[in-house]
Amino acid sequence: MTLKSTVLATGIGLWFTTIPSGAAEPIQPLTPPSDVNSAQVELGKKLYFDPRLSKSGFISCNSCHNLSMGGTDNLPTSVGHHWQQGPINSPTVLNSGLSVAQFWDGRAADLKEQAAGPIANPREMAMDHTAAVATLNGIPGYVAEFKTVFNQTPITLDQVTQAIAEFEKTLVTPNSRFDQWLAGNETALTAEERAGYDLFKSVGCVACHNGPAVGGSSFQKVGVIAPYQTTNPAEGRIAVTGKDADRLVFKVPTLRNIALTYPYFHDGAVQSLNDAVNIMAHIQLNRTLTADENAKVVAFLNTLTGDQPNFALPQLPPSVANTPKPEPFAAVDTPAAAH
Amino acid sequence: MTLKSTVLATGIGLWFTTIPSGAAEPIQPLTPPSDVNSAQVELGKKLYFDPRLSKSGFISCNSCHNLSMGGTDNLPTSVGHHWQQGPINSPTVLNSGLSVAQFWDGRAADLKEQAAGPIANPREMAMDHTAAVATLNGIPGYVAEFKTVFNQTPITLDQVTQAIAEFEKTLVTPNSRFDQWLAGNETALTAEERAGYDLFKSVGCVACHNGPAVGGSSFQKVGVIAPYQTTNPAEGRIAVTGKDADRLVFKVPTLRNIALTYPYFHDGAVQSLNDAVNIMAHIQLNRTLTADENAKVVAFLNTLTGDQPNFALPQLPPSVANTPKPEPFAAVDTPAAAH
Repeated sequence: MTLKSTVLATGIGLWFTTIPSGAAEPIQPLTPPSDVNSAQVELGKKLYFDPRLSKSGFISCNSCHNLSMGGTDNLPTSVGHHWQQGPINSPTVLNSGLSVAQFWDGRAADLKEQAAGPIANPREMAMDHTAAVATLNGIPGYVAEFKTVFNQTPITLDQVTQAIAEFEKTLVTPNSRFDQWLAGNETALTAEERAGYDLFKSVGCVACHNGPAVGGSSFQKVGVIAPYQTTNPAEGRIAVTGKDADRLVFKVPTLRNIALTYPYFHDGAVQSLNDAVNIMAHIQLNRTLTADENAKVVAFLNTLTGDQPNFALPQLPPSVANTPKPEPFAAVDTPAAAH
Repeated sequence: MTLKSTVLATGIGLWFTTIPSGAAEPIQPLTPPSDVNSAQVELGKKLYFDPRLSKSGFISCNSCHNLSMGGTDNLPTSVGHHWQQGPINSPTVLNSGLSVAQFWDGRAADLKEQAAGPIANPREMAMDHTAAVATLNGIPGYVAEFKTVFNQTPITLDQVTQAIAEFEKTLVTPNSRFDQWLAGNETALTAEERAGYDLFKSVGCVACHNGPAVGGSSFQKVGVIAPYQTTNPAEGRIAVTGKDADRLVFKVPTLRNIALTYPYFHDGAVQSLNDAVNIMAHIQLNRTLTADENAKVVAFLNTLTGDQPNFALPQLPPSVANTPKPEPFAAVDTPAAAH
């Protein structure tokens, strides 16, 4: 029995309803950020949807972190420049600002640093940063808007990634049924979902999947008890730290909106949330869940879908005759190592 | 001097302001449709943005008819399944419901017939229609919404194309500065823009580019006076009619939002609107425009940008474990002839 239900059971719960009833829970409610620069957000939203940040003019941030689909592409690994196959599953951008670091291996410190990566990655958007900035400086509408937002010309990469990151900071998904329950609405969850949450805690999932994002706050080895079976060659955080202890250590993914962010794991190899839960229980916690237990945990996980981003499709400033042009069918650069 | 300015010059113009002042002009104002089925529109909007209608799970209608970019991809020809190069420039979806027929060669009678084409085209979305419908029938949120909208199960291709077409019918862009001028606001256009419109009529552009969409209402040969220089092998409407007289006959493109729908012509080979105007004057009308005349016509054309689509980015119903899955990296089918 949790602290919360204990309190309610004492009969003095009415007094406690002014205190967030989920305060003692290992998962905290999501709240949208209050300190964003809204002019940067509006500019960053356009950039996020603008395929002119790719060499081809065909791939935008939204292509692989699609805000109509849980901030992911719902593919095992992504389609990149010239249809190259990405090396790792595209993580959701939703609530990603809450993560301890960015990318599966945490090689970027924050959203701003992350935003520069896929633009220049030859397997992703394949756009040299200098060329990306030159393109934006060739679009009069962007030149004017950047000048208004940053009070400076010409446009720089630093401004571009700052605006994208500021937009991404707003991609928080509050008000899930679980958050409603945390806020004291006892009827927001069914008995099965509530039982699933209790199992989520007692089995030990919560040891890594905790905090407001239900993950994202630490790096952990995948396959503590038994190896994770995959053909994906990603080695995890060792690529960043060089330490052998960081082999197969990845950032713990958020479980917020997990019903939308399939397929699962860093290789995107698992389509079913039921399978994902059983695999995790086995290889991380040395547990074999019964079908009933599995169903309950999945029922709980399905309550973590929050309010999705809600904004008007942005309109992009047009290129003009002398704006540098996309090259969708130019020869491909040799793919370099990528995340 | 036009009828309109004549009327105003008589000094009794005040009385006439209750009559649409553009009534005698060869271009009429755009008005959004009033007879749409809004439930179908909302469903069609989701389908329009849903990459699961492609074999790869990566390409949606919006990929090549991007509603953030004038309803086009702003590429000479499009990127299709497995990065195949499209054979012809993607025309704008904006105001396309006003066209006499669909595709450059008019091979589809209407928006509904058109919508089925790119889904199954092996060079575009490459999704067998049966597989597309099976995928949608495997997505519980779609099954429920189609049932509500069409009062029938299972989902059929006919319903899918009907909903997409109904959404596309709404993609009308009223209230351009030119439309404001047509409605009687004399200050909506500058003297240069107004002079450009007079030239547009006197030079003869208006013979083909007329009506509410400033085009789209007829098929015409490209290169009446001199051949259009291109390496693009498209032969035009002969592919539909089999008549030799229809060789290089294409649907006249709309000039609405022309500042957004670059690059120009069926091969997308011309990036500059100034160049496009000069080419048309030369090969269609046997005219060589002065730089001043060219600038005035382009200034007029730039007044044809209307209110762009304004709606919240749709949220797509998620797939579930047994929904048929995209195959982004499966072997490519042999490309067939395409538009």
